[in-house]
Amino acid sequence: MANRHRVVILGAGFGGLYAAKALKHAPVHVTVIDRRNYHLFQPLLYQVATGSLSPGEIAAPIRGILAKQKNTRVLLDEAVDIDPTGKTVVLHDERIAYDSLIIATGSKGSYFGHDAWSKYAPPVKGIENATTIRHKLLFAFESAERISDPAERQAWLTFVIVGAGATGVELAGALGEIAHHTLKDDFRSIDPRTAKILVLDSAKRILSTFPEDLSRHAKKSLEKLGATIRTEVLVTNVDENGVTVKTPTGEEHISSHTVIWAAGVTASDFGRQLAKRTGAQTEKGGRIVVDQSLTIPGYPDIFVVGDMAYSTDSKGKPLPGVAQVAMQGGAYAAKTIVKRVKGDRNIRPFDYFDKGDLAVIGRGSAVANIFGLHLWGLPAWLVWLFVHLMYIVEFQSRILVFIQWGFLYLTANRGAMLITWGTEAKQPEDQVALASASTSSKPQSS
Amino acid sequence: MANRHRVVILGAGFGGLYAAKALKHAPVHVTVIDRRNYHLFQPLLYQVATGSLSPGEIAAPIRGILAKQKNTRVLLDEAVDIDPTGKTVVLHDERIAYDSLIIATGSKGSYFGHDAWSKYAPPVKGIENATTIRHKLLFAFESAERISDPAERQAWLTFVIVGAGATGVELAGALGEIAHHTLKDDFRSIDPRTAKILVLDSAKRILSTFPEDLSRHAKKSLEKLGATIRTEVLVTNVDENGVTVKTPTGEEHISSHTVIWAAGVTASDFGRQLAKRTGAQTEKGGRIVVDQSLTIPGYPDIFVVGDMAYSTDSKGKPLPGVAQVAMQGGAYAAKTIVKRVKGDRNIRPFDYFDKGDLAVIGRGSAVANIFGLHLWGLPAWLVWLFVHLMYIVEFQSRILVFIQWGFLYLTANRGAMLITWGTEAKQPEDQVALASASTSSKPQSS
Repeated sequence: MANRHRVVILGAGFGGLYAAKALKHAPVHVTVIDRRNYHLFQPLLYQVATGSLSPGEIAAPIRGILAKQKNTRVLLDEAVDIDPTGKTVVLHDERIAYDSLIIATGSKGSYFGHDAWSKYAPPVKGIENATTIRHKLLFAFESAERISDPAERQAWLTFVIVGAGATGVELAGALGEIAHHTLKDDFRSIDPRTAKILVLDSAKRILSTFPEDLSRHAKKSLEKLGATIRTEVLVTNVDENGVTVKTPTGEEHISSHTVIWAAGVTASDFGRQLAKRTGAQTEKGGRIVVDQSLTIPGYPDIFVVGDMAYSTDSKGKPLPGVAQVAMQGGAYAAKTIVKRVKGDRNIRPFDYFDKGDLAVIGRGSAVANIFGLHLWGLPAWLVWLFVHLMYIVEFQSRILVFIQWGFLYLTANRGAMLITWGTEAKQPEDQVALASASTSSKPQSS
Repeated sequence: MANRHRVVILGAGFGGLYAAKALKHAPVHVTVIDRRNYHLFQPLLYQVATGSLSPGEIAAPIRGILAKQKNTRVLLDEAVDIDPTGKTVVLHDERIAYDSLIIATGSKGSYFGHDAWSKYAPPVKGIENATTIRHKLLFAFESAERISDPAERQAWLTFVIVGAGATGVELAGALGEIAHHTLKDDFRSIDPRTAKILVLDSAKRILSTFPEDLSRHAKKSLEKLGATIRTEVLVTNVDENGVTVKTPTGEEHISSHTVIWAAGVTASDFGRQLAKRTGAQTEKGGRIVVDQSLTIPGYPDIFVVGDMAYSTDSKGKPLPGVAQVAMQGGAYAAKTIVKRVKGDRNIRPFDYFDKGDLAVIGRGSAVANIFGLHLWGLPAWLVWLFVHLMYIVEFQSRILVFIQWGFLYLTANRGAMLITWGTEAKQPEDQVALASASTSSKPQSS
């Protein structure tokens, strides 16, 4: 093994994991490094945030997925620096030498320079934030039930989602289901159906990456679930009392104690260090500009895939930060490395195959743009169900989980609506602080 | 409703919830108060600690369970004091008047005066501690994989469980399954099957409340899973380096970074305040001594049920702190209140009906003492499965969850082996601190 080509993969999200799996039978030595011990099925994270799924149902331990892959080892650690000339990655605990490196460390929530907002508006990113959001949502109803002042009660019953991309729309739909169906009999002083769900976006329409007719269908479906869509509004402030927005007609304050951030992402912290050491260009979201082989110009042994990479399709259009792009990118990087190791010179540029786009809105309701076919309502939802079923089954033989979830979903049952971390759930702000503190704390040598 | 008899129930564990459910059709007004928003199926908590189940799978929101019960409201709050003369309970946020009070606030881990040990040896109590234990267990294997010093590696691979009652035995069995089956292919530098699992108890045999032959069967089954049982040892110290024990032959230090406390419980904090205000007697575990009607002598309107109560059966034998006693006690208190409200004077003393005792050890292995019948191995396990299935189905139509779990269990699949709360999982001590800090913090008025 010692003389084998060493492939180091940073991150075990869709990009990193697909790269590792594509190397299963390759004559290389693979090291997968992630600061979490689990792979997260991020597209269903909003279901954890709304209490329909437990974290364990959308995450799978990395070691488990790769257990039978004997050429692969897994390290629980995080890259903090890189020496591209010495071909070494610096972790918290050790230095790892590579022959080929695949960087797939993903993205994190971006507040466009207003990081202080994250305290009041957690991003839909990672399990900790999803749990924080769940606390906030459920605790808001609990508070409204206790408070008699009408204005204050309304502020607890007003939910603001910033960003109307797929995540924001899916979250608003799930929240609408909760307010109108799941919780409808639970309270004595309030009617959860009176909750106001606001979805804000600066664009002209929701789901701006989808075809226009599907945006309209999605909007109609969301409104049926009691959500209000407000486009062309710009968030100018977020604090404990709500959101201030700039609309085409002026400024406005929305009183709310529950604001959720689904607006933008930026490359993970390691990106900055990578750009500094390699001189790689970054685009405004902090993503690393890569060439047609998904490598950093001048460093053919360093691949960047997934949300961390800025790449374009054959027509020069930037590729979106979605799971599909990461999966295909990871697999491409792996195959390219294998070809090089085998001396095969026939290496083609990365060619992204776009299967389409999906967003679910509620029970039996979604929009889908599949191979150019526009679907909405139940047909779109069934496509969505099928696609997700396939992915989940691929990662773990956890088909029963999925059936269970489909069952709970269809019966509007409550899956995992727990406010954990106990009594301080009464102080959602502290929770957010707790969550972000834990996210930013660095692992120590043990 | 205003003139209706007001029943206040503190705690929504088995005792409180069964009391509330027994009042469903009663002409009373019920208020259920709990500092959590969920009821916890505590008997399966060890499965959360070992990563087989997600918290959401053994907990159900209290509001959901009682949603259709129109005479009942639920408050997310905690009793901090009581005025038994004014018939008022003091919560963090308000004061609640009662005509009848049912106290079912349960128990917490007891360290016999050594509370500092809790930092190193979290108790198997509540979801937060279970998650902390899961972190510690999984992180120990991760650390062992990284460390080359043999002694230090062995300390990471040594797991000490203090207490060999049902919880300790079930935890040891589950841990044996993990080390021998679930994780066996996951690591490259260590073999998880070399993990040492020690179960310590000061008694002469494990499962001391069970018949002696079943203790022997349980011991044999545990040893098959690689656990070592050490009885008649007394823990004299716990710190970050392990456990010091006093044995019949002298003192001994066991190096371990993963100690779990399954040894003893004490009444919840509210118990002390209750004893002070009512002059009630307490036994050494802090439990409130109640009379044959489960009320505090001199206060016929204050019932204490479940782990918080010290009561005896008709032969004067103290009732154990198990779910069955709590359920029957809660239902008895509710029925007694209804009889009094209806003017029915025919009130009998509480008569506990002991259905038996169960402890599961591993896949297809358990011990059961059912109506005096001693079972072990697969028959006992099937009884255990059936009993738990019944309870869970009763609380939520979550039968699919149970099937899923049975499936994962039988296939030795990994359910929810996530180290959440991110990178600080590298510092298990901090985690414990975090967990206990959050447990002790008091809710604030919002």
